[in-house]
Formats: sequence, structure tokens, C-alpha cells
Amino acid sequence: METRRLKVGLLGAGRIGKVHGNHVARFIPEAELVWVVDVDEAAARALAAQCGVAKVGTDPGAVLADPEVDAVLICTSTDTHARLIEEAAAAGKHIFCEKPIAHDLESIDRALAAVEKAGVALQIGFNRRFDANFSRVRRAIASGEIAAPRLMHIVSRDPGPPPIEYVRRSGGIFFDMTIHDFDMARYLMGCEVEEVFAYGAVRVDPAIGEAGDLDTALIVLKFANGAIGTIDNCREAVYGYDQRVEVLGSNGAISVENNYPNTATISNGKTIHRDLPLNFFMDRYTESFRVELESFVRAVLSGTPPEVTGHDGRMAVVVGMAAKQSVAEGKSVKIDSGF
Amino acid sequence: METRRLKVGLLGAGRIGKVHGNHVARFIPEAELVWVVDVDEAAARALAAQCGVAKVGTDPGAVLADPEVDAVLICTSTDTHARLIEEAAAAGKHIFCEKPIAHDLESIDRALAAVEKAGVALQIGFNRRFDANFSRVRRAIASGEIAAPRLMHIVSRDPGPPPIEYVRRSGGIFFDMTIHDFDMARYLMGCEVEEVFAYGAVRVDPAIGEAGDLDTALIVLKFANGAIGTIDNCREAVYGYDQRVEVLGSNGAISVENNYPNTATISNGKTIHRDLPLNFFMDRYTESFRVELESFVRAVLSGTPPEVTGHDGRMAVVVGMAAKQSVAEGKSVKIDSGF
Amino acid sequence: METRRLKVGLLGAGRIGKVHGNHVARFIPEAELVWVVDVDEAAARALAAQCGVAKVGTDPGAVLADPEVDAVLICTSTDTHARLIEEAAAAGKHIFCEKPIAHDLESIDRALAAVEKAGVALQIGFNRRFDANFSRVRRAIASGEIAAPRLMHIVSRDPGPPPIEYVRRSGGIFFDMTIHDFDMARYLMGCEVEEVFAYGAVRVDPAIGEAGDLDTALIVLKFANGAIGTIDNCREAVYGYDQRVEVLGSNGAISVENNYPNTATISNGKTIHRDLPLNFFMDRYTESFRVELESFVRAVLSGTPPEVTGHDGRMAVVVGMAAKQSVAEGKSVKIDSGF
Amino acid sequence: METRRLKVGLLGAGRIGKVHGNHVARFIPEAELVWVVDVDEAAARALAAQCGVAKVGTDPGAVLADPEVDAVLICTSTDTHARLIEEAAAAGKHIFCEKPIAHDLESIDRALAAVEKAGVALQIGFNRRFDANFSRVRRAIASGEIAAPRLMHIVSRDPGPPPIEYVRRSGGIFFDMTIHDFDMARYLMGCEVEEVFAYGAVRVDPAIGEAGDLDTALIVLKFANGAIGTIDNCREAVYGYDQRVEVLGSNGAISVENNYPNTATISNGKTIHRDLPLNFFMDRYTESFRVELESFVRAVLSGTPPEVTGHDGRMAVVVGMAAKQSVAEGKSVKIDSGF
Repeated sequence: METRRLKVGLLGAGRIGKVHGNHVARFIPEAELVWVVDVDEAAARALAAQCGVAKVGTDPGAVLADPEVDAVLICTSTDTHARLIEEAAAAGKHIFCEKPIAHDLESIDRALAAVEKAGVALQIGFNRRFDANFSRVRRAIASGEIAAPRLMHIVSRDPGPPPIEYVRRSGGIFFDMTIHDFDMARYLMGCEVEEVFAYGAVRVDPAIGEAGDLDTALIVLKFANGAIGTIDNCREAVYGYDQRVEVLGSNGAISVENNYPNTATISNGKTIHRDLPLNFFMDRYTESFRVELESFVRAVLSGTPPEVTGHDGRMAVVVGMAAKQSVAEGKSVKIDSGF
Repeated sequence: METRRLKVGLLGAGRIGKVHGNHVARFIPEAELVWVVDVDEAAARALAAQCGVAKVGTDPGAVLADPEVDAVLICTSTDTHARLIEEAAAAGKHIFCEKPIAHDLESIDRALAAVEKAGVALQIGFNRRFDANFSRVRRAIASGEIAAPRLMHIVSRDPGPPPIEYVRRSGGIFFDMTIHDFDMARYLMGCEVEEVFAYGAVRVDPAIGEAGDLDTALIVLKFANGAIGTIDNCREAVYGYDQRVEVLGSNGAISVENNYPNTATISNGKTIHRDLPLNFFMDRYTESFRVELESFVRAVLSGTPPEVTGHDGRMAVVVGMAAKQSVAEGKSVKIDSGF
Repeated sequence: METRRLKVGLLGAGRIGKVHGNHVARFIPEAELVWVVDVDEAAARALAAQCGVAKVGTDPGAVLADPEVDAVLICTSTDTHARLIEEAAAAGKHIFCEKPIAHDLESIDRALAAVEKAGVALQIGFNRRFDANFSRVRRAIASGEIAAPRLMHIVSRDPGPPPIEYVRRSGGIFFDMTIHDFDMARYLMGCEVEEVFAYGAVRVDPAIGEAGDLDTALIVLKFANGAIGTIDNCREAVYGYDQRVEVLGSNGAISVENNYPNTATISNGKTIHRDLPLNFFMDRYTESFRVELESFVRAVLSGTPPEVTGHDGRMAVVVGMAAKQSVAEGKSVKIDSGF
Repeated sequence: METRRLKVGLLGAGRIGKVHGNHVARFIPEAELVWVVDVDEAAARALAAQCGVAKVGTDPGAVLADPEVDAVLICTSTDTHARLIEEAAAAGKHIFCEKPIAHDLESIDRALAAVEKAGVALQIGFNRRFDANFSRVRRAIASGEIAAPRLMHIVSRDPGPPPIEYVRRSGGIFFDMTIHDFDMARYLMGCEVEEVFAYGAVRVDPAIGEAGDLDTALIVLKFANGAIGTIDNCREAVYGYDQRVEVLGSNGAISVENNYPNTATISNGKTIHRDLPLNFFMDRYTESFRVELESFVRAVLSGTPPEVTGHDGRMAVVVGMAAKQSVAEGKSVKIDSGF
């Protein structure tokens, strides 16, 4: 049986581009990686060689102009996402784009309008939705296993803070870190966030505060389904990457723990202990990166809507804006037509 | 060696009075139960018989007038606490009083002033401070084991809601339920709460909302030590009494789980499961009720300050008032000289 | 309502006698401690004073001759158990006796015959049957929750070896330590052990081997119900007292873990750890010691058979003998009429 | 940089052959799959197409005669292993061979002699040594983390029994199932098994007993390092594939648990539960199959000895023979020059 394979062009051969490129090239039989482009030509060439890809370059335009290409993976720097979405949509290519789409709603809305007009598929890279733990929680809610949600907690802490230059450019903790959790909250609950309150603190490194950002935060959310919940963020947890969720429903509760390199328990004369959890997102979320691309490829090939939409990409940014405003004003902020 | 034993009079032979009376009579060699008083004379007589106590009655005044009595345990209804504290202090008796002292600060302040003037000991019945799990968390913070606290979560859910008449009289969820958690938050952090924000919801029973109360709540706290934290309350968790805490510090984290009737894990063709946790405070906190009275008896006999002070009793009420105000105003409320 | 209380005499005021004496005196309203006897008169007096008991002495005969006494608790040294059972039975007293009854079957059989003839109740002190974890496992088997048992593992390790003089007099590891596990195996399975094989080793202290004993052992058992199982013993586990069981049945499995002083999990930059388990039998089995005496008192008062019989006491010794023989011969030993 | 890649021929395109073929073709950059051979030509063609391999056939001889081939993976039926090892060795090819090498020592010894004579590398497919859990246990022993081993337990249970025809041909439970555990025991302890005793039972399906085999077994082992241990096998565990190990050492203990599809804990009004463990070896040991081939490829390319030797393959069979003899004789069997 001969099946059509999706021809994919990769824009951006950095850390996450390498992950996606390898996944398409090795693990997804329904797709074929046909282009690798990066501003750093050597990086593009190296990845292309590793993946057995013939077409290499530095110009995204060449990919978009290539009639062989069905879809592009936008893995470039954030400031180029919205523009590349617009151009790819105009070229009739399906689009997988890393989050966030942009930091301003104007750019996002223009990009989404272009996608809508072109009738192409757009999927945003909220990979955690495809993680086995979090999708199990979603299933418990969606299937009614725990009935109506009442309370939710997301704990999301990094092993250590990023370089201070990154903090300066990233748009702040709500946009470089919590954005994943805002999406997780909406995904798990299956509805919109209606109201946000946030406390922020600088507890890890005063330099982060001096750069105008927070390194520790508690965000409280009211959902359209009547539930309430929190997100707990810290830029440093000495024991490693801490990624957990729990939800209380009217007929039960579900919680997920961290993932570990092994299941060993070691006992000695002092403690009963285990090794530290998997140490940061490339190890922790390896599987989810592969599954999200499978999902994208299948959605495009079957003509069904992607599992993570442009609207999802937009709303995570909107909730982040509301959280930022709440910290500034010390008040709960409603998410309404103002956003 | 002959040691002096503390002669104790019990005021109130209801559910919690029975617990305290039995503890003094059976488990605390340094104390002796000499009086049992209750408005229901039969209840007083039954408990006195069970504990081998000779003096029984319905009038607290008789206990306070008895020169044999060193200390009283106030286990009567909440509306009598403040007045009985004042009278016991005036009579020169040491006092153990169940929480809350009162629902208004005027009564509390008058009672605390009376205690101060009389120079007697006053301990408030925040028994959870004496629980092995929570005291382990406190130790981790006080000893520097996890270094400077950054984030804290308290989960405190009841197995089911109280009768609706109780809800009408109790002063609301923040005063009948969260009051324990407000004290826990202060106890664990070892400092005051400076600011409070709260979201409330009615998710369990509309009748609770009609009675003007909440049954589900998220309270966010800012502490004087710079940490931030949440309290998660629900009047119903179908799996039982849920009492957990976790704290992230700059050099580690600590979390405590629920207590269970056994450690069994059962596997069948469908799940890997365990039995439900211990089902409500009389089972879950049995040990802590005993230890808190030991602590009180020892404090009085040794002349050292009680481990839970009148100020602790007052501040839990103050934080509750701030939380109530926050829900009403949708704003963060600072706890300052206004309280 | 006036209920008859069981008048109990305590023979032996050593470590375990103190535990039982206090339980009867304080926690079991249906019983009354009326005598304390010990070869060390001061020890007897001290315990009697602590428990409010008037009759004190050094002669068990005085207790057995006292018509007020309904039952005796034999907590003396092992070599006196069988004889005291015979004498107490002859005096018409109900008997609770610490294990083992004796190290030789002749003494045991004579004692059991005396009990049978006198028609008194005899309960052997296999307290672990009354532990919440192990009784949960028994319930899973007895109720059919895991259906037909196939495989069983008992892990039973001490925190450290006893003094070498104790090892010399104790009859060896199978009689001073494994005897509890032999009873546990029979209790959990609800049937007899039919065949035994054992490997022994000296891995903790060569002095134990020089004293003719083992400090590490693996015993394999065949049960009358067709299941097979192991007992794992070591006289030293540096992390503390290790008491676990697991059973595989045709429709599921059940396992129980150790008990801990708290449920805290502490994370730091090196490990995720918890505190060591409860550290030896007085802490670990506190509750079971109380429950076994309640069981005895109720059995006697209601005229129902004790939950742990003289036959149970005998069979644990028999299995121990077979295990000893297996180590000597390197062969599986059948338990039949030869024992 | 141009590195030499190991050219690999695959003999056998069945279940395990597919796994190894895909691993070489996709995940191990240092190797290249150049041949696929199977008695079922269609199966060989399908796998070759999937892996992009040009040379396909039904005759292993063609692979052995191909000078391009550096190494072969023997994934054919067990009865052909020893002969193919001999032929591959004679052809100067390095060899990775699935376990067991054979069921009789003559064939094994002839194969190992051929390998020795030819000076090629031979690695046996004991993939579990490369599992993250078990290698963590090995590390704890090898590094001295728990000091001198005293007691070991291996639990190894299948989710359900194989077809009865498989049981008839497999050589029995000790050779088709326990053989992995015999190797695991030797691997973890880092020394030889010196003595074996085994109890067997038919508890799952009488048809297995009628076929002359066991479905439930307890094997006890004495190791050259003085430790003792058990292996617990059952051909059916209704909750799924159960693969655990624990080791007690003189300075600590280590245990590993099963692997699960997610870390979720679900609570409802009846239990606190989690989903069943990963359901059989292809899911449970996915990673280890990949890592063992990486290990083989690296060993050959670097000229270092394989991590699992022909001697390892032989000894697992020897211990199985001793266990079988022990069941037949009811005696402990020493493993000496007789094997």
C-alpha cells in the first residue's frame, strides 16, 4: 500500500529544531523531512546531514516557494514566529509553530487571520499536552472519571534560572515559563480562564528583580466551568525539574508526580531515598515532543483540526497579560473583551 | 520522688471535651482530672464516671471557685470562650481553650488583656501543630534543612460538608475550617501573614451558598519572610479527609501526605490501589490531641510559655477576616494596624 | 449498666510485662489489673504503683491461689512458660502466654493437654496478627479479594543483632526471630505449612556463627493450600526494623510496607528522601500489643475461642524445628506425623 | 569527520528481529543495517523495506559469505542459535545472539569454542542488564553503595501464560522464563551461583502441569560472595508484567519497582489507585533493547569485550539445569565441575 507522506520543511535548526527535525526524519513514517533552513548555515547543514536531507539553506522564503513542501515547522526565534506564520499561510503551507506566537496581540491576531484566510492547519507547540501524565489528567476530567472539577494545582518549577540576558528579553516569567502552565490549565479544564490574580516575588536572585522580572509566583485562576486553581512557579528548585498537577473533582481527585530516571529506593542508616527526577525539559518531555509532531502530521494528512489551535496559542498570551496586570494592580483581573 | 500533679477542671463534656478529659485522666501522669462540668448534667456525669472524677456539675463558676483547681480546659461552645477565659483568668486559673477564641476582635482582645493582667498561662487548641507530619515540616524550616522558604501549599479538605445549620452559625468557612490552616501557615513559616487574597466558590452544595457561605476556597498569602503560599479548602472530598502540606525552600523542599489505616497496596486486573485515608479529624489527629495537652500541662508545671499563645489564637481570626474582605472586594488585603 | 470485668494477674514485670500491664490497666475497660508479680520485687512494685494495683509479690503461686483472679498474663522467661501454663490451667485460670511456649514439643504438649483438660482459654502472644497491615493482608486472602494464593514473601529484619549471650540461649534465629514469621505465614495463608527448606548464612557477625547460630536466612515453605512462599530474615538492617509481606493470588496481589514516624518527603540537591521507618518492635507494633489483649479479654468474657490458639503456638515451633533440620541436611523437610 | 560504521546483517525478522533491526537502522548512528534474512521471505522483505535495506533473502549463508558484513544479529529460533554462532564465527563475523544459546551444554560449548577460536566478539541478548532500574541496582552493589550483599529477591511474573504448545517446546519455565532471572541474579551479584534449591507448583493452569512443566516457582540461590537470594516466578499475574528486585547489603538496601504508563494517582470514594504497570516486555524493556545493541556495536568498534559474554549465556542455562534437578530431587544442588 502506497500512502502519501507529508513533505516537511524545518525553519530553525537550534535546540528545539533539532528535536523536531530528528523526530520527523526517524520516527514518523507518514512524514518526510525535505528542507532544513537556519540563519546559521553550518547548523542547518549539520542537521540536514544527520537526517539525510538534501535541501539546505538560510532563507525561509526558499522553503515556502518550494512546491514540494506541504508543511513547515517554525522553530526560529520568537520575534519571527508571527511573520513566518503569515508568510507560510500565504504560501499555502500547513504550519507547526513553537510557542509563543508573539508577545503582542496585534501580531498574533494578524497571524491567525492569515491562517484563517488561507485555510491551512496551524498547530502551536504546547508539547506538554501530549505528555502521558498530563494527558491522563485531562482524560480523567474529560471522561467524567472525577466528575465536575473544583480545585486545581499546577506546580511548575525549573531546576535553575536562565541567564540574566534571557530574562531581560523573554517578556518575563509569565511569558517564558508560565505560558506553558496557562495552556496546561486551559487544556486540563477544557474551558477558558475567566479571572486571574497573581502574587510575584524575587526569592532566587536579586538580579532577576533588578531586570524587572519575578522568579517566584503564585497565580490563582477562575475558570468558566466554576472551578478555581493555582499555578506555582519558581525559577529554581535545587532537586530538579518539578512538574506536577492535581485536580479535585466532585467525584474524585487525580494527581501526577514527577518522572524519574529509575524506580529505585535506596535505604541506608540515615534515610530512605531515591534519585533526583529527570532533569529538565529535554529529558522530561522527550516523548511528548515526538507525539505532538505525530499529532500534527496526522491532523494535516487526515484534514482534521490540529489538537492545539492558534486560539490556544493566543489565549495563553492573554492570560499571561492578565497575570502581569494583576501583579501590578494588586487586584483580580477579569479576562473579557478587553483582551 | 513526689511530683506535683496539675489539677484540671474540664468545662464542656461534648465531643472534644471527652477527648481532652480522657487524655488527662489516662495518659498524662503529670495531670489529674478533678472536675467535669457541662450544661447537660447527664453528659458531665457519664464522662466523670468514665474518668473516675468525683466533682461533677453544670456550673463553670463552681470549678473556678474551687481552690483545688489549677487549670481549666474550655471546651464549651465558641460563644462562651472569651467570657470563660476572662473569668478563669480573674480566678487565677491557667487556661487551655479550644479555637476560635471568638469571632470578633473586641472579645478576643478583652480576653487576652484579662490573661495578661492575671499572669496565667493560656494555650489555644490548635492541635495540628502537634501532629507528627506537620511538626516535621516545621522542623525542616526552623532547622534550616530546606533553607529560606519560597512557596507553600496547604491542602485541607473535609470528607463531607457539615449540616447546613452549622454552616449558618459557624461564621463561615474561613472561621470554622480555614482557621486551622491560617494557624498552620503561621506556624510552619514562623512569621506573620502580611497580605491575603482569596477566591471562593460554591461547588459542593448550593444550599451552602444560599446560607451566605462558600464551600470551596483558594487563599493566597504573603508572609513577612518574603515567601508566598496557598491554602486549598473544600468542604467535600469523596475519598476522605485530605490534609497535606508542601514547602519549597531555597535549598530543598518538603511535603507531607495523608495518613492511612494501613500500608497495603492491592493489585488486581484493573488497578493498583490502597484503602482510603484515615477518615476525619478524630481518627487523623488522635495523637496530636494527646500531645497538645501534654504540652500544656508541661508548660504550666514548668512555668514556660505555652507553645500556642493567645496571640496565635487572635491572628488566625485576623487572617480569616482579611480573607473574607478579599473575597468581597476582589482585591488583595494588607494585614496592618487596621486589624 | 454494670458489666463484669475480667480480673487479671500479671506474671512478669519485664519489658513486655510492662506493656501488657499498662494496656490492661488503662485501655481495656472490660479488664482490671489486680496482681503484679515478678522475681524482682522492686520491678513488680514499680509497675503496680504505676498501674494502681494493690496486690504485689514475687510468687506466681499466690496469684494462682487468689480466687479473685480470672486470668493470668504469662510474661516471664521462656523456660517457665510451659510449667506456668500447666499450673494456671490446674488452678482454673484463663491464660495469655508470650511466645514461644517452649523449645521442646514434650513440654508444649504437656501444657496444651493441661489446658484442654481444665477447659480454660489459652492465647499465645503472636501480636503481629493484630497489626493493621498484616490483618489487612489476611483479610484480602480470607475474603477472596485476591482469590487463591500462589506466592508469598515475608521480609522480617531486625535493626541490629541482640547481645551474643542472648543468641547463645535463645534457641537460634528460627526460634527467637523467625518464630513470629512462621506464625505469620500460617496466619496469612490460613492453613498449615507442609514442607520447609532453608538456607542460612552468617553475614552480620562471625561471633554469631561461632555461637552456633545464623544471622541471615531464607526459608522456603510449601503450604497445604498449594501455595509456596519465602521468609527473609536478617539480624541487622542498617535502615531499621523491616517488616513487610506480599502475596500473589490468582486474582490479584497485596503487599504491605513499613510504618514510618511521619509521611514527609524531603528533596534536596542530592536525593528525594524520607525519614527511617519506626525503629523496632515496641514502636512498630505498639497498637498490635493493645489489640491482642483486647482480643483475649473479649474471648474470655464471651466464652469464644481465642484468636491465637495453643496449636498455633505449637506449630510455629514445629516449623522452626523443620527449618533447622533442613539447614543441617540440605534437603527439603516434610512436616508430618514425625512432629 | 568520517567514522567507520559497523555493517550489520540481521538473521531472523520475527518479533525480536524487528526490534533489533529497527534499532540498528534508526537509532545507532555507528551501525548500518545491510542485510535482512528470514525463512519467511515476505517477512524479510517487509522489514528490509521499512528499514531501507537493500539486501534481502532467506539464506543466512549468503550473509555470512558477504564480505561487507561485519557482524550478525542471530534472532532465529532457539534450535538454530548454536549452529549459526559456529558458522558466523567461522566466517569471522562478530555475533549478537538472542538467549538461550541452546538447551544442552554440548551445543553451547561447541559454539563458544568456535567463537574463541575465531577471536570474534559474542554478546548474548540479556537485555534486562541494560534496563535503567536493574543497572541502578547493579551500580549500588558494584560501587559499594550498600556494601556487602546479604539477601536478594527477584520477582519476575508474566501477565499471562504462553500458548500451551510454546510450553511444550520451550524446555520449561526455568529455560523460557527464569533464564532471564538467573542471568539477572549473576549480573547483580557480580559472581557465580554456587548452589540452587527450587520449589515448583502448578497454580495457574493444570494443562501446564500435564505438559510436564511448572507455572509457579520459587528458586533459592547461594552465591559465591556469601549472599543468598530468591527468584519468584509465576506465568500469570492479573495486574500485568511484574519485574522487581531488592537487595539487602551490610550498609543499606536497594529495591526497584515496576514501570508505569504514567504517574497518576486517582482517588475516588472507594480507593486511591493508579493505572496498571506497563504490560509486557516489549513495552517494559523497550529502552533496554536499544541500549544493549548500542553496547554491542560499541564493543565491536572499540575492540573491547562485550558486556554480556558467551560464558554468561552458558551459566544461565547451567543454573536452570540445577534448578530443574533440585525440583526433581527435593534437594539443594551444588553447581560444580559436574556442569
